[in-house]
Amino acid sequence: MNNIQDKTGAPPGTVVYYGEQQTKKVKITLIEYNETEFIEKDFYDLSECVTLINPNMVRWINVDGVHDAELIESIGKQFNIHPLTLEDIVNTHQRAKFEDYDNYVVSMMKMITQEEGEIHSEQLCVVLMEGTVISFQEVEGGDAFDYIRNRLRQGKGRIRKMGADYLAYALIDAVVDCYFGILEKIGDRIEELEDDLMKEPSKETLHVLHNMKREMIYIRKAVWPLRELINNMQRSETELIKPSTDIYLRDVHDHAIRVMDTVETYRDLLASMMDIYLSSVSNKMNEVMKVLTIITTIFVPVTFIAGVYGMNFEFMPELHSAWGYPITLILMGIIILILLYYFRRKKWL
Amino acid sequence: MNNIQDKTGAPPGTVVYYGEQQTKKVKITLIEYNETEFIEKDFYDLSECVTLINPNMVRWINVDGVHDAELIESIGKQFNIHPLTLEDIVNTHQRAKFEDYDNYVVSMMKMITQEEGEIHSEQLCVVLMEGTVISFQEVEGGDAFDYIRNRLRQGKGRIRKMGADYLAYALIDAVVDCYFGILEKIGDRIEELEDDLMKEPSKETLHVLHNMKREMIYIRKAVWPLRELINNMQRSETELIKPSTDIYLRDVHDHAIRVMDTVETYRDLLASMMDIYLSSVSNKMNEVMKVLTIITTIFVPVTFIAGVYGMNFEFMPELHSAWGYPITLILMGIIILILLYYFRRKKWL
Amino acid sequence: MNNIQDKTGAPPGTVVYYGEQQTKKVKITLIEYNETEFIEKDFYDLSECVTLINPNMVRWINVDGVHDAELIESIGKQFNIHPLTLEDIVNTHQRAKFEDYDNYVVSMMKMITQEEGEIHSEQLCVVLMEGTVISFQEVEGGDAFDYIRNRLRQGKGRIRKMGADYLAYALIDAVVDCYFGILEKIGDRIEELEDDLMKEPSKETLHVLHNMKREMIYIRKAVWPLRELINNMQRSETELIKPSTDIYLRDVHDHAIRVMDTVETYRDLLASMMDIYLSSVSNKMNEVMKVLTIITTIFVPVTFIAGVYGMNFEFMPELHSAWGYPITLILMGIIILILLYYFRRKKWL
Amino acid sequence: MNNIQDKTGAPPGTVVYYGEQQTKKVKITLIEYNETEFIEKDFYDLSECVTLINPNMVRWINVDGVHDAELIESIGKQFNIHPLTLEDIVNTHQRAKFEDYDNYVVSMMKMITQEEGEIHSEQLCVVLMEGTVISFQEVEGGDAFDYIRNRLRQGKGRIRKMGADYLAYALIDAVVDCYFGILEKIGDRIEELEDDLMKEPSKETLHVLHNMKREMIYIRKAVWPLRELINNMQRSETELIKPSTDIYLRDVHDHAIRVMDTVETYRDLLASMMDIYLSSVSNKMNEVMKVLTIITTIFVPVTFIAGVYGMNFEFMPELHSAWGYPITLILMGIIILILLYYFRRKKWL
Amino acid sequence: MNNIQDKTGAPPGTVVYYGEQQTKKVKITLIEYNETEFIEKDFYDLSECVTLINPNMVRWINVDGVHDAELIESIGKQFNIHPLTLEDIVNTHQRAKFEDYDNYVVSMMKMITQEEGEIHSEQLCVVLMEGTVISFQEVEGGDAFDYIRNRLRQGKGRIRKMGADYLAYALIDAVVDCYFGILEKIGDRIEELEDDLMKEPSKETLHVLHNMKREMIYIRKAVWPLRELINNMQRSETELIKPSTDIYLRDVHDHAIRVMDTVETYRDLLASMMDIYLSSVSNKMNEVMKVLTIITTIFVPVTFIAGVYGMNFEFMPELHSAWGYPITLILMGIIILILLYYFRRKKWL
Repeated sequence: MNNIQDKTGAPPGTVVYYGEQQTKKVKITLIEYNETEFIEKDFYDLSECVTLINPNMVRWINVDGVHDAELIESIGKQFNIHPLTLEDIVNTHQRAKFEDYDNYVVSMMKMITQEEGEIHSEQLCVVLMEGTVISFQEVEGGDAFDYIRNRLRQGKGRIRKMGADYLAYALIDAVVDCYFGILEKIGDRIEELEDDLMKEPSKETLHVLHNMKREMIYIRKAVWPLRELINNMQRSETELIKPSTDIYLRDVHDHAIRVMDTVETYRDLLASMMDIYLSSVSNKMNEVMKVLTIITTIFVPVTFIAGVYGMNFEFMPELHSAWGYPITLILMGIIILILLYYFRRKKWL
Repeated sequence: MNNIQDKTGAPPGTVVYYGEQQTKKVKITLIEYNETEFIEKDFYDLSECVTLINPNMVRWINVDGVHDAELIESIGKQFNIHPLTLEDIVNTHQRAKFEDYDNYVVSMMKMITQEEGEIHSEQLCVVLMEGTVISFQEVEGGDAFDYIRNRLRQGKGRIRKMGADYLAYALIDAVVDCYFGILEKIGDRIEELEDDLMKEPSKETLHVLHNMKREMIYIRKAVWPLRELINNMQRSETELIKPSTDIYLRDVHDHAIRVMDTVETYRDLLASMMDIYLSSVSNKMNEVMKVLTIITTIFVPVTFIAGVYGMNFEFMPELHSAWGYPITLILMGIIILILLYYFRRKKWL
Repeated sequence: MNNIQDKTGAPPGTVVYYGEQQTKKVKITLIEYNETEFIEKDFYDLSECVTLINPNMVRWINVDGVHDAELIESIGKQFNIHPLTLEDIVNTHQRAKFEDYDNYVVSMMKMITQEEGEIHSEQLCVVLMEGTVISFQEVEGGDAFDYIRNRLRQGKGRIRKMGADYLAYALIDAVVDCYFGILEKIGDRIEELEDDLMKEPSKETLHVLHNMKREMIYIRKAVWPLRELINNMQRSETELIKPSTDIYLRDVHDHAIRVMDTVETYRDLLASMMDIYLSSVSNKMNEVMKVLTIITTIFVPVTFIAGVYGMNFEFMPELHSAWGYPITLILMGIIILILLYYFRRKKWL
Repeated sequence: MNNIQDKTGAPPGTVVYYGEQQTKKVKITLIEYNETEFIEKDFYDLSECVTLINPNMVRWINVDGVHDAELIESIGKQFNIHPLTLEDIVNTHQRAKFEDYDNYVVSMMKMITQEEGEIHSEQLCVVLMEGTVISFQEVEGGDAFDYIRNRLRQGKGRIRKMGADYLAYALIDAVVDCYFGILEKIGDRIEELEDDLMKEPSKETLHVLHNMKREMIYIRKAVWPLRELINNMQRSETELIKPSTDIYLRDVHDHAIRVMDTVETYRDLLASMMDIYLSSVSNKMNEVMKVLTIITTIFVPVTFIAGVYGMNFEFMPELHSAWGYPITLILMGIIILILLYYFRRKKWL
Repeated sequence: MNNIQDKTGAPPGTVVYYGEQQTKKVKITLIEYNETEFIEKDFYDLSECVTLINPNMVRWINVDGVHDAELIESIGKQFNIHPLTLEDIVNTHQRAKFEDYDNYVVSMMKMITQEEGEIHSEQLCVVLMEGTVISFQEVEGGDAFDYIRNRLRQGKGRIRKMGADYLAYALIDAVVDCYFGILEKIGDRIEELEDDLMKEPSKETLHVLHNMKREMIYIRKAVWPLRELINNMQRSETELIKPSTDIYLRDVHDHAIRVMDTVETYRDLLASMMDIYLSSVSNKMNEVMKVLTIITTIFVPVTFIAGVYGMNFEFMPELHSAWGYPITLILMGIIILILLYYFRRKKWL
């Protein structure tokens, strides 16, 4: 929840990992392909991986973990990546952004995935250079790319025929599509919450409402720069992204705007629901007050009458009359009926 | 209400239908016309339809249903439509947009129609290419185009003299005009609601208010990109839209802005009405409280006096005085009158 | 109040009148002038009017009513006005706009006038063409132009020396100036309402507040596009507006912005006043509650004591003591005094 | 407070004074200077003043009053000022603006000064022409320019070495600086109000809050266009403002933005304080309710018990038991203790 | 907290110190370096410092205090700094800004540092000229630059190899990084506050909430222009900033935007928390009211019955029946049970 790092004082371009401490060895996955061939292999060592690189193929190097600063630095040296980019890769509290360097372009964003109902967020960096895509994920496993891997393995669709820029696009598209899934879940919860509000708003409803508002604030914070990222990517003058990929970027841009629209819509809905909640609480209090008022108003006058005839004065003529008691009871009954009629007319009953 | 699709993982450009499952056969309607001739025919098969195409006429192919992915793909092949467009056509949760391809331009929007008082929303895609307009509707029947069809049949007005771009414009104009009808209905309901608020705001009023706010949120979400669509259409450099049609696009752009204005006005009104509702609830509680306070304040002191003379002390001189009882009653009456006067002065009565 | 027309299905460019039905014959007023001559005449027939047109003079043709579609169409034909413009003229629910055609420019706006304290709103279209201004008003009488007519008749000021573009400017300026009058009235009412709020906010205050908010919403909706209209007019490349008139357009633009500023200021004030109202209601309830609490808290304990000595136990030694009664009364008095002191310290009294 | 003039119907360019009626004779002050010489003289007649003008000096003509339309018109003729500018000068409800004419530029703004704690607002027009600055103030005395006059008289600083454009800048800078003083005062009052809110929010606090909100709304309305004025001045292509003055304009632009920032900050603070007030009122009511509830809850049950033993049934065995009375009293005490413990646990005590 | 200075009347370009009065002597620190050499020395006299300046090295002159106007003016003369810049340096209530002069560029901003948990804010001016950076701090000690000094001393990283523009960048980057630390602290406090709100919202929570809102308002006011500063720096056409430094400016621009995002997120969260607080207060009152209503409703009717049989009428047959008392008690018990059941069904118990 806390997206701010305590980086005060670190020199610009220093590769220091700021996330939670991790000790797992970093896995590097190399996928190389062209229209006819396909190679996929896992490594735990960069030098081994590099030897396998084939200039006639497009390659996707996926790095599952950014806590090994040394490894990231050696990748940086191998592929000629600027220290500032490396700093951004290991610093997992980045804002989504697209940056244009001489020999590569880099896109950073939050990737949100769902595993067994639990939402899991990690940072993804996609470095696109000539014929090569390097993706850096914060932790191993649980990414949004299984579908892309399968398509690459099976050689279906156009992905094996296209270059590295299409691959980079496909990765970003997969990330944006993940947001739709999350939002759909949230949409369902909003509808449930609306039903709750209509029926029986409770203190828990309020907390759920606040939590959802907070979630929307954080999702919005993640999504807003995403659109800018794709925008900058579209307008970038880099030659790494070919004109034929432009049409796909336009499509993913469109999806990002759609995500934004939905986020804004949900924010509006939640704001309206907060109003409903507040009104409901007031309405409820109104009802409690009415019950109190009716009961008090009916019994206080007749209790007063009873009090009067409970006084111990010696000279109270009514007390000695045979009709005193029944007439008093009837009088009390009439008062109660008048008040009930008054409340019914006021529509409090 | 839930405008998000669960598309996670689908490859870009895959033609998969995401709407509710439909089994009805898709009807294709071909209308061909020029200034002198007019042909209209229904098909359930694309190849039949294609054979009838006459190069000297403007043609409008209306496809009533997008759930038959195979048919859509064959139309795509026949008319050389990009797979991404086909994907958008069958995915019925699109944001309104205008896209410019080499050989065609495509406009997507939500079409809202009213049939017997029920609002019905479906997606409409209008593909404009040289001499041809292809429109894709989500379901058969209940569209906004009967008026256009009649004008084409009767050859009235300028529509038969104009090209395919005018036809595309006319379709979009019809869709925008439909929004006016819906908004007018909502306007009437807002006025009714205002009257209710003035008179007798109830819990139901609150729910109606929230529902209308929600409706406005969704309509706004649908209309906002519509304006952009027309804007992009106007600024598009395509040669498919002739300069003579520009003036009509300006007109429909104007209508779209007017729809937007009305939506924003209604949002402001509804927000103000929410405030009124909250104040009314508070006012009502105030009144309940006043009744309670008046009754309690009047009877509690006199009941106390009755209590005092109900005590059983042996030596209470007042009890033995012949005037004790009437004086006590008069005292009570005076107290009650003073309190009533106090409440009248405070304007609580 | 309902600015939406039910136009669904009408073809673009169809001249159908959408306002309330009117049967009065449409009056056409022709004013022709140059620096030395001045002619003013009323007609109920277009052809008569046309014969009088003098090419060496500037002419202003004012049409008082747009419900006679046939007349409008014949004017259109006579002066070569595009059907879309004619459609806008008869459709009295237009958004203020400026449009640039080949041979003329057209400005449409809402004209608000005050007659005997009643606000009256109608649509005004000003068509400016070479040497000619044609103005279309919704109804006869009650316009904002008497001042201009007088200046034309008397030949005072620069108006008789200037061309048709200056006349068009003068008409728009008069319309904008009318808004100031309305806003001033509203400003006075806001100040009154503020006083009411400070003194004695009632349920009526709330409704007045809501009505004023609604009025501001509608005025804002009318004024916002007005600024745009003048803006577009200034930036228009038409040769009908001469550079010498630019300085006057800048002035009216300035006035329009000033109207906008005032509208926004009033909206802010009204929002703040709504907060005041809500707080006042809460404050009032607080006071009611305090009265209730004070009375209850003072009498409930002493009534309890009276109740205790009203019990009928045989063995209650206090009852037989000669001092029982006065001591009890004193005790009650002390309790009441302590409570009063407590409330005074809490500043409830 | 009411910034709208009733100008309906006045012809554009008519010099009619709209402020409160004033009868004082208008004072004209002429200051002429160059690096070595300095002349300062008061006139009540324009022609006298004009004869004294020295072409080799920079001159500042300050007009203390704009209610003498004839005088303004004669100044207009003398210095060749456009009628529209003259109209703006005498109309004291102008929005701050900068306008560029052929032979001069004019800046209009509200000047706010403080005299003996009272805020005083008047309109200032600064007309800058070749070698001449003419300033029009609404009333005599109480302007922000004493400092500038002293510097001119004493020949200190760079002002006597610079041209008329620097003088115009210095006047505007003095006006902007005045806003800082006002805002500082308001800042102090906001802090006081915050303390009040924390301690003892009363109905008066609410009204002070609303009044400050209203003040901020009006100051904002005055300041917002000021920034634009300076902006337009900077971007103006006039040759009257020399490049060497640009750096000073940048500085005053900066000050204007700082004023704006402060205004927005105060608005945010006041909005937050309104929320605090509303919560405080609710909190207070909560406390009142708690007192009421505690007292009622404690005494109602024991009063009921007293009522039971106050019944006059013949066969009530407890009444005849010697222990009846003390046991009843102990029972009542226990009930009271239990309730007190319950309220303490609920943290109501 | 009060960022407004009382500068009314001061001439532009006057070097007058407006902060709190300070008497400490101003320390000047000179750091000179190139790739191989490093010199660091403290002075209390400008002339001594100047003699040591070495044209082949980059130098950083840090001035710890701006209250000695004479010193600032002599620095201004020595390094040819414009009087307006000097005025801004000594006026410690500046808005963050970047300005471009002929021979230097200057950046002004608020530097926020934390020392032993206390936040400390002072103004920092960074003047960048050929080969020289002059930084002006408001007070001695407690700056954000220790890290930079250490890197310079140790010659680590690229800083010793780069020019004066990189040094200026490094200083600004250090200032921006400080904001992250502050925001992180605030983020922690917001989370604590959220927990408090969920559990036990008290009057203190409200004040903490308001204070945090106020803090965010002030931080926002400080941060917003910071982004603009860096923006202007990036787009500046000065030759003092070399293209190789651009990439670092882009990075710090990114950080500034991230700070902004976090500030906005916190503002949204705090707004949502205010709503929660208000609802909680209402909820609490609801509960208090329920307790009151339940107790009153249960005991008032049975107390009435007791009152009836406490009346002293001679002829009340029930009083003489042996079963009168137990039946009455049972009746009271039944009434209480019915009411308890009613409240349980209403979910008030």
